Formats: sequence, structure tokens, C-alpha cells
Amino acid sequence: MMRSVLAIGAHPDDIELGCGGTLAAHRAAGDAVTMLVVTGGQNGPGPVGERRAEAETAARSLDCLLLWGRLQDCAVQADAATIAVIEDAIRQTEADVVYVHAPDDSHQDHRAVAAATVSAARHNRRVLHYRSPSTTRFEPSVYVDISAHLDRKLAALACHRSQVASSAMVDPEVVAASARHFGAQARVRFAEAFVPSRFVWDLSPPPQLPPALADMPVYQAAYRSRGVT
Amino acid sequence: MMRSVLAIGAHPDDIELGCGGTLAAHRAAGDAVTMLVVTGGQNGPGPVGERRAEAETAARSLDCLLLWGRLQDCAVQADAATIAVIEDAIRQTEADVVYVHAPDDSHQDHRAVAAATVSAARHNRRVLHYRSPSTTRFEPSVYVDISAHLDRKLAALACHRSQVASSAMVDPEVVAASARHFGAQARVRFAEAFVPSRFVWDLSPPPQLPPALADMPVYQAAYRSRGVT
Amino acid sequence: MMRSVLAIGAHPDDIELGCGGTLAAHRAAGDAVTMLVVTGGQNGPGPVGERRAEAETAARSLDCLLLWGRLQDCAVQADAATIAVIEDAIRQTEADVVYVHAPDDSHQDHRAVAAATVSAARHNRRVLHYRSPSTTRFEPSVYVDISAHLDRKLAALACHRSQVASSAMVDPEVVAASARHFGAQARVRFAEAFVPSRFVWDLSPPPQLPPALADMPVYQAAYRSRGVT
Amino acid sequence: MMRSVLAIGAHPDDIELGCGGTLAAHRAAGDAVTMLVVTGGQNGPGPVGERRAEAETAARSLDCLLLWGRLQDCAVQADAATIAVIEDAIRQTEADVVYVHAPDDSHQDHRAVAAATVSAARHNRRVLHYRSPSTTRFEPSVYVDISAHLDRKLAALACHRSQVASSAMVDPEVVAASARHFGAQARVRFAEAFVPSRFVWDLSPPPQLPPALADMPVYQAAYRSRGVT
Amino acid sequence: MMRSVLAIGAHPDDIELGCGGTLAAHRAAGDAVTMLVVTGGQNGPGPVGERRAEAETAARSLDCLLLWGRLQDCAVQADAATIAVIEDAIRQTEADVVYVHAPDDSHQDHRAVAAATVSAARHNRRVLHYRSPSTTRFEPSVYVDISAHLDRKLAALACHRSQVASSAMVDPEVVAASARHFGAQARVRFAEAFVPSRFVWDLSPPPQLPPALADMPVYQAAYRSRGVT
Amino acid sequence: MMRSVLAIGAHPDDIELGCGGTLAAHRAAGDAVTMLVVTGGQNGPGPVGERRAEAETAARSLDCLLLWGRLQDCAVQADAATIAVIEDAIRQTEADVVYVHAPDDSHQDHRAVAAATVSAARHNRRVLHYRSPSTTRFEPSVYVDISAHLDRKLAALACHRSQVASSAMVDPEVVAASARHFGAQARVRFAEAFVPSRFVWDLSPPPQLPPALADMPVYQAAYRSRGVT
Repeated sequence: MMRSVLAIGAHPDDIELGCGGTLAAHRAAGDAVTMLVVTGGQNGPGPVGERRAEAETAARSLDCLLLWGRLQDCAVQADAATIAVIEDAIRQTEADVVYVHAPDDSHQDHRAVAAATVSAARHNRRVLHYRSPSTTRFEPSVYVDISAHLDRKLAALACHRSQVASSAMVDPEVVAASARHFGAQARVRFAEAFVPSRFVWDLSPPPQLPPALADMPVYQAAYRSRGVT
Repeated sequence: MMRSVLAIGAHPDDIELGCGGTLAAHRAAGDAVTMLVVTGGQNGPGPVGERRAEAETAARSLDCLLLWGRLQDCAVQADAATIAVIEDAIRQTEADVVYVHAPDDSHQDHRAVAAATVSAARHNRRVLHYRSPSTTRFEPSVYVDISAHLDRKLAALACHRSQVASSAMVDPEVVAASARHFGAQARVRFAEAFVPSRFVWDLSPPPQLPPALADMPVYQAAYRSRGVT
Repeated sequence: MMRSVLAIGAHPDDIELGCGGTLAAHRAAGDAVTMLVVTGGQNGPGPVGERRAEAETAARSLDCLLLWGRLQDCAVQADAATIAVIEDAIRQTEADVVYVHAPDDSHQDHRAVAAATVSAARHNRRVLHYRSPSTTRFEPSVYVDISAHLDRKLAALACHRSQVASSAMVDPEVVAASARHFGAQARVRFAEAFVPSRFVWDLSPPPQLPPALADMPVYQAAYRSRGVT
Repeated sequence: MMRSVLAIGAHPDDIELGCGGTLAAHRAAGDAVTMLVVTGGQNGPGPVGERRAEAETAARSLDCLLLWGRLQDCAVQADAATIAVIEDAIRQTEADVVYVHAPDDSHQDHRAVAAATVSAARHNRRVLHYRSPSTTRFEPSVYVDISAHLDRKLAALACHRSQVASSAMVDPEVVAASARHFGAQARVRFAEAFVPSRFVWDLSPPPQLPPALADMPVYQAAYRSRGVT
Repeated sequence: MMRSVLAIGAHPDDIELGCGGTLAAHRAAGDAVTMLVVTGGQNGPGPVGERRAEAETAARSLDCLLLWGRLQDCAVQADAATIAVIEDAIRQTEADVVYVHAPDDSHQDHRAVAAATVSAARHNRRVLHYRSPSTTRFEPSVYVDISAHLDRKLAALACHRSQVASSAMVDPEVVAASARHFGAQARVRFAEAFVPSRFVWDLSPPPQLPPALADMPVYQAAYRSRGVT
Repeated sequence: MMRSVLAIGAHPDDIELGCGGTLAAHRAAGDAVTMLVVTGGQNGPGPVGERRAEAETAARSLDCLLLWGRLQDCAVQADAATIAVIEDAIRQTEADVVYVHAPDDSHQDHRAVAAATVSAARHNRRVLHYRSPSTTRFEPSVYVDISAHLDRKLAALACHRSQVASSAMVDPEVVAASARHFGAQARVRFAEAFVPSRFVWDLSPPPQLPPALADMPVYQAAYRSRGVT
């Protein structure tokens, strides 16, 4: 019994910052998790090759599958091309749940990826927006308890050495503080917070993924070899 | 494995109108469900005794427990007394999920019960606001699929004969239309819609209620005799 | 005595879905109504030629004038070119009232047409946003009673056979349910709902259109031959 | 052909400040207008008797009917008693349109009258909130052009001599400036601005009031003697 | 050169939790600061006498003046009596800045004190709402850097021993985490966050308080003896 | 002791309309002020050369430095190029405070400049959005008292003769009325109103600008020659 989860971020490290603990919780619950990084992070500090390797290490540390969107850092538009990249990932993973940036953000790529995901996931029943350090307006109402997973989130984030070293926006101290802040709001110890675009609460246990899933390209080379399904 | 659900309404029929289908879905998933009706509906059409009997029939048709708050119709305040009534019900049921009116409503009792519940449920992890026909502002983001339960909702509502007959606000045609309207928003056939005050999504299956529950006064006379636990 | 009404949609069928009943009510009140379809709907199900013919049949069934914007489906931007197309239609029709998509929508073309119309209609006194099946956030406060016109709305929608047959977003059952849902909110039977950008309520009866109107290109070939003015 | 208009304010001068120009426009369009002042303004500057006389002079200057609610200044609650006073006025006037304070206001009576009116007018199709000098949050979307009626608004306000002389909140200079400010927003010269709770736009000319109206107590002694109907 | 600052809270410890660091920053800038505690905290954990002593110790540790409102815990109403208590404190302190609870809060007293302060401070140019652990909706846009004052905030909070020991809502770990969370939002290390009701930014240095201030009752016994002015 | 202020507008006259009085107040307080006009206003009424000269006269009348962004009127995008222009101005001026358009506006360039500034100023502690005549949604909470500076604002605006003569959006009568309207909200006579993206209130007097500032290119040719620093 498992869900298929898709987390989408504009740059390497965005997903870990926004919902890394929640992804760890999904894996602990036996769900399949795929991360889609839309650009290569060409403009951030650190060379592209290094960032790519960091993202792969981080995804491995969270035991998640990693997909790349191959768009250009700082030039993402919420247009048909970006939407197609995300639709493709939704189709490949048959996603039950989609996580993505919040729409109000000071980074133009984050805004574009959020808007493009709202378009691409128009038929999905669960689309949740996470918070980035650059998010501006954010009034969360949905939370996931990550008390048992904060360590894994911080470990995954630490894999992005080039960012932790050089970006004012990536600060583990703040990540832990925000998790405690939202935890208090959620009446747990540590939490990640979300703004739902649309969240159909499934009262029955998570669905059994169809057998055909294990044969889909996105999972064949990955989960099967790791013995997940 | 079951959750303890508490649904709160100001008058007889409010709960059925707002989340009757969701309560049926909870029962179908094996959860324990309690309805707390805060007043006797003394001012609506129909004598109090009749309304009381209607509510009991409706609760029975949904296979839910029914509690009465004994406050006065049209005179509910969001004060310490009302909060105490609701705190008491939360404590008795050890509620995992609380459903209640939306805060913006043209009925003063609905506003008061919503505000008092936000106070009483301040330590709860899941508080969801449902919509009434008199609700004014309402931007839902959480939904429950009631496609398999709309019939039971309408049947429970039909038990409130005095209201269906005389109140312009209680119209089964509108109830079904709104369920289809929100269903389309939720990407299912029929849905009930909710605004979350706070919703901690539990990724693991619903918790096993502690054995002690079956011994609590609120459940002893009720569920046990019906063989629920 | 008549108003000049302009309804704007990104694709064939958008206007009928959003405000088809209101347009019928305007025609019944003797107002002149023009529909501006910004793109040819090249990407939806059904060939372009067929969709064009469907839109023309639908406009005829509502007895409205139809203008085409000739932009490209799924590639509309809220830029100077799109704004110019809409400004042109506003000028040609000397519009008293403008209807258009709501700004928050999962379809990028809908968002772009809404934003471009807000720009183009900056001097207009009445700009009302309608709801599409893909609209996300929508808190209406203005309504039009379409109890006497729902049939015409559904008939106009049925003209878009290619969409009714193949698009999950075009479902007459949902259209009728939403009309009842909003009708209950408006305290009538069936209603269409709107979010006003700016609505100057004219307390005097609708103005007599200037005689010159009948000589303007947009109306000459159309209304005159149908004996509208 | 006329509408029945009901404007509600907590204290003498509130209605003139909030929608005096609009009431003049309604009278100019041939509509019947009733003002309901909920309290006697016992706590403001000026003796009660003087304020009562000022309100009567102002209502006469606007050629509107004046009703008094007889509640206590600074002690209004949004409870059943206040709601009953307003329901009574709605019933007596068979109101087509209801004007009242905006809900977010620094005066507790204004908040209470706004909330009580939302309750009392739950079956009405047109409820519009006006702005007071003490209103806090206010995002208007509906406007009435009062360019031809600003003088009458200022004249009606000037009747409240005790307030113009002593209250920092009643300043004709600000009233005129705000009318110009909102006029620019509405694309007219002077306007009053409103937040609609619910506004059903009637596309046909305003309804003919039923003949029975002239026989209702509220109008008999008043309009008839002035030759309005 | 100094400002007169008034911070208002419903219960002992509310002010320290919400804006204790900011009050320390005001004192460090040479401003006069008064705390008004509206009730005695009769219902919280700990006896009233003890709570009173804790509040006095905390105020002394922040070097602020302490006033008591003498209303009843859990029974505060936003009525004329509560407004009068706050008006009195504003008048006595000739407050330039007023800090108070945010309006959306799960504690009924917090809601009432926030609403009453908005009424009482209707002529004030600077009214800022702070966040409590029980605040629900809160979208801050104004911040004060308390990096140099977090220690004093935590020390003042620690004076409320009965609360730190027994209330789930008073947790120094969360207080520090939230300060870091809001600090990151404000682009400083630690911050307190505020929602402004009205904030007139004074571009010139803070005004010299009039000499007469030192003679006002509220300051005579207090600041003078401590040599503040 | 002075602040470095940067005001950003899409076209010549936007800054004067939005915050001209505030800039005068900053200059009166001894602050350095730079205006960045992002486009040449090629599409408005009046030839580009004339508009350029008008802007220079206006900046001189306010005693502010003027920078040009050299982007194209009506074609501004919130993309990396626009962000780079603004980042460059922030860097050159070492801005303490940034003023820019409000995000919701009927002019596409205003929307784009607002969004690009939110991106470019992501590390700034004070970003305030001003209102334009074309702004749509605007709920201000921060104000600057311009009672002593309204004349200078109107004089600066009058320098833009081509706009005052021909644009319906540039009307000194409305500018003065809005200043009075917002002044009443701010409890002063005339005010400009702002929506803060982020405003860290500095309780200590404004910082002494570093000596190096006078050597930066942006100030060398300008302020020094005018003897400002």
C-alpha cells in the first residue's frame, strides 16, 4: 500500500528546503517519492556540475527518485514548455500528491514553477504549496509532522554544500527554527507547513499503487533496483 | 484502527447540512463519530420536542453518537460557558478531528459556535470548517469525496422534516447541487468542502484508538451497544 | 434603450461556460452583446475549423455578435499585442459592461486574458470576472439571475459538441449544479456569479445607445440585418 | 417604477457620511428611501434632543423617511434584539436594497450594526457596505456616481451641526476629498464606494413597487403626504 | 528625545511573549514604555497573587512601567468598559505607539482586547499587532530587530515561572525559534513581527516628549524615581 | 546622519504620483534620494525627448538624483534583464529604503516593475509599495505625513506638462484629494499611503551613511556638486 508523491522545485535544494522532511515521512510510510528539479541552477553559487552531483547525493540520502527538467535558471516562464515538462513528470509518476513552491515568492523562477504546476496539475486531487526562504506571502493551514525526520531533512540539505556555504537564503539554523515555529502552530514539535491549492483528504488508507507502476520507465531503473516496490 | 471524530453545529440539521456525507465516509472507514448540537433549535420552525426527535433519528441514520449542548437558540455567545461545553465534548471524545461552522456566516449562533470551537480546540491538530447555507465568505481548499455517501447525507437531512418543509435555507436540491459543484472543484463527483483552521496530515494510517476509549462515558452506552468497537 | 455588452474569453466555449446565461438575460433586456474569442482553440480537442463553426452556432443561438482575436491557443501573453486586440473590441463596441475570466485560473491563457482585459478596460466603469471550471480562487459578490435563461445557456454550450464530448472541464451537469449553487447564494433559483474589478451601479435605467452606434462597423453587418437596433 | 431602499446606521450622521449621495441619487431616480438610525447617539458630542432634531432635518433635506431603532449608543450588540429591530425595518419597507456600515470598523457599534444587518438581511438580494471615517479595512468594488449629488450630501451632513463642530471624524473637507478619490477609482468625478455582501444586478429596469406599499404603515404617514408615490 | 510606548496584553506574560524584545529595544533607544495588563490572569495556572508578582518582576526586568486593567480573565468583552480602561491608559501615557494582540486568536480575551484597542486607539497614528502562541491568522509586514535584545525577552519571560512550568503555550524554545524565523523574514538575525493597523512612519528623529509628561501621574512615581527622564 | 532612499517607477511621472511627497520629506530629513525611471515613456502622450526633460526638471525640483533604466515602454517583463537593472541601482545607491509600484495594477509595466523589484530587493529590509492612479487592489497600512510637502509634490508633478495636459490618469485635483483621503486614514492632514512588502522599523535614529558613499559613481557627479553630503 503506497502513494506516488511528486515534489517539484525550480533549483537544486529548493525541494529539500521546502518539504524535505515531509518527503522523508512519505518514504517512512512506504510511499514512492520523485523529485523534479526544473533547472540546473546555472546562476546560483557553485558550478553546474557540482550542483548536479549535490542534488543527486541529497536525493539518494532521502531515498527518492530524481528527475531533471533541463530548463534554464532565472529564465523559467509559466508557459506551455514548462507546463509540458511538469505534465510529463505527473504522467510518468501517476502522482497522487504534488508539492511545489508557493505562488508569492521573490524569485521569478519560483513564481513561474508554482504557476506552471497549478496548470499542469489541474486534474490532480492534492496540490500543496511549500515555503521557500524567498517566499513572501504564506498563510499555511496544512502541516506534516516531521519531528522524526528533521535530521534527515538537515542531512539532505547539507549535501548542497555549495549553497550552504555561499547563499544567504540557505541557513540550517533558520530551517530548524522555522520547523519549530510551524511545529508549534501545528501542535507538534517540528513541522513543515503547506498552503493547499486543492487537497482531497482520503479517509481510507493510502491506495495500493497499480502493479503496472513498477513497469513504468520512471520507476523501472530506480525503485525496483532498490527493492522499494 | 479508527479515528475519533467530533462534528459541532449550532442547531439540529446544521451538521447534516455541512458535513453529513463526510461523517458517513468516516463511519465507512471505521471511525467513531460524535455529533454535538449546541442548542435545541428553539427558534426555528417546528416545536423543540419534534426537532429533538428529528435530530436523533438523523444521527441514528448516520450511525453517529449524538450529544446536546443545552444552550439557547439565537442567544449563543462565544464566551467561557459555550467554550466549556465544547471543551467537554472534545475531552470526552478525545477527538482527533473537529468539524464546525465556518466563521463568516449570517447567523449569529453559527459565528459564535465557530469562534468558541476555535478556542476550545486550541490544542487539536485537525479543525475543519464546513459550509452552511447561511455562510457568507468561504474559500475551501480541503475536500472529502462523498460520491458514495450523498444518499446517506440526503437521507439524514430528510429526517429533519420540520426544516425541509419550512426553512428556505434547507433545500435538498441545493444540497445536491453544491455537492456536485464542490465535487468538480475537487476533481471527484460529489464532495463536501472545508476551510482548515489547522490540519495536520497524518501520513501513516489512522491511529488505533486506545483501549481505554471504549470505557469512556461518551462511548460506553453508545458504540459498545451497537457493536462498533 | 440598451447597453453595449462585451464578453471576452480565451477559447471557444469559455464565454458560454462563464456567463452565457447573463448574455441571454442582456439580450432579453434589449442590450447589444458582442463576444470576443481571443484564440482559435487550436490545442483543445477537435479541429480548429469545427471549433470555429461551433462557436458561431453558439453565438447565433444566443443572438450575440461574435469577434475573433486570432491569437494562438496556449500561447497568450498579457502583453501589448493582446491588450491591443481587446482595446480594439472595446472601442468598436463602445462597451458599457465587460465580462472576462477571473484572474486566478489554472489555465495560463485564462490568466493572461484576464490580466490583459484589466489593462485594456482601464477606463471602463463595469468590469466583471466570471468563473471557469478551471478557476481556482473565486469569491463572488455580484450575481445575475439566470433562472429564465439557464436553458439557453445549456443550449449554447451544447453547440460546442467537440468539447462536451471530450473535455473533462465541460460538463453540463456541473454547469447546472453550479448555477443552482450560486443561485442559492444569490437568493434566486439559478444564477451566474461574478467578482467585480469595478462596478459602477447605474441607478437610472440603462442608457440609450447613441444613434451613431448602428453605423459602427462592428454592428452594421450584424445587428442591423437582424433587426436588433 | 421605483425601488425601496433601506439605509442603516448606528448613530445620527453615519448614514449621511457613508451613503448620503447615493440616497440622493436614489431619490432622483424615483426610489423610496428609508433611513434607520439604530441609536440616539447618546454618547457623542451634543445633547440627544439636539442630535435627534439634526437627524430629522438631514433626512428631510434628503427627502428620505427616518426611523429610529431606540438602542443605546456605545452598547449595541449583534444579538437577537438588534437583529429584530433591523428585520422589522426590512419587513416594513420591503427593502430591495440595504446599505449598512462596513464590518471592519474601530467603533464597536458600527461593527455590531454591520453584523446584525448581515443576519437580518439574510434573505435580501442586495446588501452593500458603506465606509465610515472610522472604517479600517475596506476594499470597495461597487460604486455609485454622486457627481450630481455631492452638494446634497454635504448639505445633509451640515445639518448635523453638533458633530461637524466637535467630532474629529466628521470633516466636510475629508468627505469631499474621499468622494473625489473614489470617483477617480470609479472613472467618474465624485463617487461613494461600497463593498457588496451580495448584489444581484437586475438587468431589467427597477421594479414597480406593489400598490400595497403605499398602504404600509411606514410609508403612509410619510411619502404619501409628501406626494412621493 | 524619546517616544511614549504603550503595550497592551490580556493576561500577565502576553506582552512579554508578543513584543518583549521590542520593548527592550525601545528602552535602549531611550523611549518611555508602559505595559497595560488588562486582567489578573485569574484562570491560568498559578494563583493570582503569584502571577501578579511575576508580572511585576518581569516589567522591572524590562525597566518598563506596569499598569493593571482589573478586568476578569476569560470574561473580557470588547465593550465600552474595556475600551474605557484602554483609553485611560492611552491618555495617561500620551502614547505615540500602541502594541496589542492580533485580532485573529483562539483565546477570546485576546480577540476582545485587540478589538477594544482598535476602538480606544482610533486617534493614534501607530497601532501594531503582535503575535501570541494562540494567534491564528497572522501575515506580518513590519518587524523590529531584536538581535541585541532576545536575551532580555527570554529573561522577562522566565519571570513568569508559573506559566513556563505549566502552560503548553509558553515555551522559551518556541519563542527563540519564532524570533529566528521572523528574523530571516526581516533579513536580520532575530526579530519580532507585527501586523500594522495603522503606522505613520516618522522620518524625522523621535519627538522630544513635552516637559509636562514628567509631571503626569503615570510617570511621576515611576520613571522619575528611576531617573529615566 | 542620513538614509539612502531609492524610488522606482515604470515611466516618467509614476514616482512623483506615487511618493513625491514622501521623497520631499526624506530630503527635508537630510536623506539621499535617487529616482530610477525604468523606461523612457515612449508610448505615453508627448515625445520621448520632452518627457525626458520633464522628468529631469521634476527630479531637480525635488532635489533628487535621477537614473534611467533604458527599457521599452509597454514591454517591460519581470525577467532577469529588468531585475538586473534594478539590482544595479540598489547596489549603486546602497539603498536603505526602496519604494515601488503596488503589485496589482491595470498597467502591465507597473505590474512587471513591482514584481522585478520584489526580486531585486530580496535582501533589503524596507520595501514599500506606493499607489498609482491605475492601481487596482490596495490596502495600505503604512503612511508618511506629507502635510508640509504636498506643494512640492504638486509642483514636481506639474513639471510633467505633457502628461497633465493629455493623460486622464494624471489629475492634480485627484492627487490632492487622495492625499487628504489617506491623511484622514493616517490621522494627519495629507499623507501618502504604502503597502509594505517588508518594513523593519529602525528604532534608533537613521544611520550615518558610510563616508565611502560620497565616492560612489552614482553620487559623485550629483550630490557632491549640489553640496548635499
